[in-house]
Amino acid sequence: MGAREILESWGVMDYRVIDRAAIEEITLGASILATGGGGDPEIGLLWTYKVLDEGKEIIMVDPKYVPDEVQVASPACLGAALVLTEKPPSGGVLNLAMRRLERYLGRPIEATIPIECGGVNSPVAYAAAAELGVPVIDVDGMNRAFPELQMTSWVTHGVHASPTVSVDDRENVTVIDTGDDDVLAENLARRAAMAYGGISWVATYPMTGRQVKDASILYSQSIAWAVGKAVMNARRGHLDPIEELLNSLRRERGVEGFRVFKGKIVDINREFGSEATKGFTLGRVTMEGIDDHRGHTAQLDFQNEWLNLRIDGEVRCLPPDLIAVLDAETGEPIRTDIMRYGYRGTIVLIPAHERMRTEKGIEMFGPRHFGYDLDYVPVEELNG
Amino acid sequence: MGAREILESWGVMDYRVIDRAAIEEITLGASILATGGGGDPEIGLLWTYKVLDEGKEIIMVDPKYVPDEVQVASPACLGAALVLTEKPPSGGVLNLAMRRLERYLGRPIEATIPIECGGVNSPVAYAAAAELGVPVIDVDGMNRAFPELQMTSWVTHGVHASPTVSVDDRENVTVIDTGDDDVLAENLARRAAMAYGGISWVATYPMTGRQVKDASILYSQSIAWAVGKAVMNARRGHLDPIEELLNSLRRERGVEGFRVFKGKIVDINREFGSEATKGFTLGRVTMEGIDDHRGHTAQLDFQNEWLNLRIDGEVRCLPPDLIAVLDAETGEPIRTDIMRYGYRGTIVLIPAHERMRTEKGIEMFGPRHFGYDLDYVPVEELNG
Repeated sequence: MGAREILESWGVMDYRVIDRAAIEEITLGASILATGGGGDPEIGLLWTYKVLDEGKEIIMVDPKYVPDEVQVASPACLGAALVLTEKPPSGGVLNLAMRRLERYLGRPIEATIPIECGGVNSPVAYAAAAELGVPVIDVDGMNRAFPELQMTSWVTHGVHASPTVSVDDRENVTVIDTGDDDVLAENLARRAAMAYGGISWVATYPMTGRQVKDASILYSQSIAWAVGKAVMNARRGHLDPIEELLNSLRRERGVEGFRVFKGKIVDINREFGSEATKGFTLGRVTMEGIDDHRGHTAQLDFQNEWLNLRIDGEVRCLPPDLIAVLDAETGEPIRTDIMRYGYRGTIVLIPAHERMRTEKGIEMFGPRHFGYDLDYVPVEELNG
Repeated sequence: MGAREILESWGVMDYRVIDRAAIEEITLGASILATGGGGDPEIGLLWTYKVLDEGKEIIMVDPKYVPDEVQVASPACLGAALVLTEKPPSGGVLNLAMRRLERYLGRPIEATIPIECGGVNSPVAYAAAAELGVPVIDVDGMNRAFPELQMTSWVTHGVHASPTVSVDDRENVTVIDTGDDDVLAENLARRAAMAYGGISWVATYPMTGRQVKDASILYSQSIAWAVGKAVMNARRGHLDPIEELLNSLRRERGVEGFRVFKGKIVDINREFGSEATKGFTLGRVTMEGIDDHRGHTAQLDFQNEWLNLRIDGEVRCLPPDLIAVLDAETGEPIRTDIMRYGYRGTIVLIPAHERMRTEKGIEMFGPRHFGYDLDYVPVEELNG
């Protein structure tokens, strides 16, 4: 069976074929929405290029067409982004994870759902779908990136990560089944990744079509695609990529983003990769304003992803709202794992998707969850 | 099906019914052979008392009667002994682990095999067998206790710990499947125990009857039983328990143990329970000689279990040979997790079983594996 046959069995005639240009646009958009995390898009793209070169098809389907009873799951990379850069994936690891999840569930998986917007995990969900011969559903669990497995709209809407299958490239397999305890699932999955040497490949969040529709960020892939396409168009037409990005958000989501700062990195306070930090990249960055922002200072806290922004000591953005630090010329995101002293960037703030802003969501991935003594205030109120 | 029906289906008429007195003798013997580790026998016994009180039968069978093709596995506790003391097991956890292992294997488990001689893991294998309605086979994987999952005659004879199912008392489940990488299985199982809060319950070493016969320490339960019975008899008859113990080893195994030291603990250098020590109890103990040994000093290194003994600076015992530190009056073992300054004990050394002394065994659990710069020399040569 291939993706088209599955869609036919669902009675669906309307779908999008994702070619190389499309996956590049989606991945660029996803890496911008990844708020400084999500890993190196080159690694995720390598995989999609490989499956496309092998003649496999990537098919994306609207969530509204997904039958209630079908079984789907999310293939993803879980571990330290820096390790991944040194250790690109070998083919087959996500296949192995998905096949073992099918065996554990005793049911075939008929579609993939990306877990987050990220340079790795967005294209990975497409590549895995093509390898498995199933469609990708136009959703995800965050419409941004976050450092932990349980930080999804799925969990805050009552869908759980268990069972999760975690594998490494030597075909070691760990099945994690913690019922509704998603924080323990994250803890176990993180420890498995450390035992494997820093990086794991997971098949996680098995759920039904009904749950996809009730609990996902709907059209998250279309949003990433629109953002990526806007920035690519800006590059080609020598337009302002930030302006085009903000326009794409207005069109695609009907929300207003905020261009709040332009500066250069003058200080990076970083710890990473130790057992103590559980494999996360974390710390604080200071940027000094340039151009119109000369004389002002921005401070960004990060834990894999950017979390908090202060400008001149005033809080301007808190999780789950999105912070993107972008190259003003190219719109390319500056990631926390590769940023350096002296990098110049424009800071753009984007309201999180409404399904990420529920009371449960603020509790599970608002500022207090990350250990900051701050109450969540929506980014549009902080930048009104 | 119950244990008797299984034995009948194997065509076996010859087996032993283990009553409360028998399990107490076996557990005492096992805790002596546990070389300072193996956990609190009271906890393991509580469980066997419970299943016996419920009218369930414990049946032990000779390994020679086990058909080649039957599936068996080992139920065990894995984690920090100190945590276990504070957190006794709730019923059903090992049932859950064994049932989930059966489901993962797609085959029923027809007998249990104790993993080691220990105050917890010996009786636990009996209690789990009674709960499951299967026999216990008269073998184990060590005929002593050791701190890590892979330190068994099973591994050194080509049988692997995977798949291992690890559960906690909230019914969280982790399935570990690392093929022939038993060190990684241990690493993952240890991390799962830490994530659970320090203690896990595992169903591990699924193997066939043929593998049991080829790779186990045969009659390990009978050896523990003989040792426990000898010490119990000594207590009742006011005989020297150490002498009776040495006699029982001569009779049951045809080997000579060594009574080498009597002293009291004058120094304990201990680290335990931290993430860094992976939940192990480890350190070094110094004993000052008393009675005939006045003026002499014994030094014992331990990592959960006693590992090395030096007397007056001279090496007298190295792993995998056994060190028992016993109360001279009662024969009760002094465990590394509960010993205190001032405890008095007699040190008895026992040659490890021949299946633990292979070249592969010395490599996997000889002194160098534990980080000591010493070559293994058999205890009978060090005490000739």
